[in-house]
Amino acid sequence: MTVNKNEIEEWFKTLQTNICNALTNFDTKVEIVQDVWQREQGGGGCSNALRNGRYIEKGGVNFSAVHGEMPEKILKALQLPPAEFYATGISIVLHPLNPHCPIIHMNTRYFEMSDGHWWFGGGIDLTPHYIEKEEARLFHSALKQVCDAHDSSYYNSFKKWADDYFFLAHRNETRGVGGIFFDRLTADEKHNKLQLFHFVKDVGNIFAPTYIQLMNRKKDMPYNENHLNWQLLRRSRYVEFNLIYDKGTKFGLDTNGRTESILMSMPPMARWEYNYVPQEESPEQQTLNLLAKNIDWI
Amino acid sequence: MTVNKNEIEEWFKTLQTNICNALTNFDTKVEIVQDVWQREQGGGGCSNALRNGRYIEKGGVNFSAVHGEMPEKILKALQLPPAEFYATGISIVLHPLNPHCPIIHMNTRYFEMSDGHWWFGGGIDLTPHYIEKEEARLFHSALKQVCDAHDSSYYNSFKKWADDYFFLAHRNETRGVGGIFFDRLTADEKHNKLQLFHFVKDVGNIFAPTYIQLMNRKKDMPYNENHLNWQLLRRSRYVEFNLIYDKGTKFGLDTNGRTESILMSMPPMARWEYNYVPQEESPEQQTLNLLAKNIDWI
Repeated sequence: MTVNKNEIEEWFKTLQTNICNALTNFDTKVEIVQDVWQREQGGGGCSNALRNGRYIEKGGVNFSAVHGEMPEKILKALQLPPAEFYATGISIVLHPLNPHCPIIHMNTRYFEMSDGHWWFGGGIDLTPHYIEKEEARLFHSALKQVCDAHDSSYYNSFKKWADDYFFLAHRNETRGVGGIFFDRLTADEKHNKLQLFHFVKDVGNIFAPTYIQLMNRKKDMPYNENHLNWQLLRRSRYVEFNLIYDKGTKFGLDTNGRTESILMSMPPMARWEYNYVPQEESPEQQTLNLLAKNIDWI
Repeated sequence: MTVNKNEIEEWFKTLQTNICNALTNFDTKVEIVQDVWQREQGGGGCSNALRNGRYIEKGGVNFSAVHGEMPEKILKALQLPPAEFYATGISIVLHPLNPHCPIIHMNTRYFEMSDGHWWFGGGIDLTPHYIEKEEARLFHSALKQVCDAHDSSYYNSFKKWADDYFFLAHRNETRGVGGIFFDRLTADEKHNKLQLFHFVKDVGNIFAPTYIQLMNRKKDMPYNENHLNWQLLRRSRYVEFNLIYDKGTKFGLDTNGRTESILMSMPPMARWEYNYVPQEESPEQQTLNLLAKNIDWI
């Protein structure tokens, strides 16, 4: 038994609907603007832009299934011969209104080349404006549980991969408390295609309940101007990561993807202040101290 | 008669002082935070961060002179063999408070490789939040005058280069009304090193008077919430250009430059709104219509 790209594509579409339903149940005020789009060179997608919620200020829950000639730039980077590609996936970023709540991101994708090569990739990571260890523990425990159900080596290996990937080298800081990241997951002696697909499905399925659980702990916490200012500064780091390092953003822009869908990950507002240094021992400084690789959050 | 790197470096330092003096004379409220920094792998610089002015909200006037091993990534991109490099230059971005006033950028640099190759590069471009044709004409006329004094082919060729360089492919828009851009300017039959240096000096010298002239036309124009919102949206495009395309930013981050100095070009605040479309015939829409290559502003 195996699975083909149409079934995978259909499942990503369903996941998008399920996640949007869960989020609108949680945040009944959030507006969703839906745009169905076509890509000139092949394929298209459906973007759900979220905005003006009681808890979610801005975000996107995007599905796409695109295909066509692989751009030379990417072939070169991946060291592949000229080929057609097919890529389908779901991509989510949510920016909460309350600065005590974390930003979350998830992306899962399936990739197929005309020479028959295929792989799954994905990741899910949490970017709190203020890091709280218990929140990070809950998040990582949920990820570990999903990983452990499929392969006892997954969590450690994908957690490390996330630490390395969600990293702003120019700031020497991680984007947040990390999560899991995996790429080029293809069949081997341990896992066939269907088993890998089940893993990707399980990752997708825990997204909404996990984020809602975390949001419910903090969505009504009071905040002040100082918290909001810090949130704006942390959001600028999020912008920097996505525009400088994020491979999905690069791939999207390089393949003439739909710009408004790709940049839905941008925060509603961001602030840059020259050489901002928080007060010693402040919660802001404590957060900076925890933006490091190789922390065992569990 | 020629010129060596120490003289060029000294001149850039003096230019930095002169420009800061001109700007503080123009905007007596603007604060300057000066940081002198050393680069671990060789060289250093002096950053002047501007903020909280009456007219200039945020900006930077930076000088640097760095040297060391050329990073492999850059050698590959420039198709050069392993070598030491030396680079000195000045880099300026000013974000005005008033949305009717334009953002300005200038960068001029001198580059020398251990194998003896050297070149000048630079550029100056204007990014109005609202494009006004007369302002663009004044700006381009000033640039053309400087170019024409050195080579009658410079303006047309460097204006086109700027159109191509200051371009956001993913938005299909130019960053603003352009200006001039040049790179790899080295001695040939027409210009020796000293003559090229004089050209770079002349470009540097017109920066402050030209910007102040443009600012004086509009710095006291009244504005409202709608103008400010548009300014924030345009600033997000500036962020996108600098983090996705700008070669100076890339070079700085790739050579372990001082992050706070490199990212001084960031606006104080920027806003992203999903799929924002201005009203037809509005000044905002008129500006978008003019964000195109190959417009003869003069």
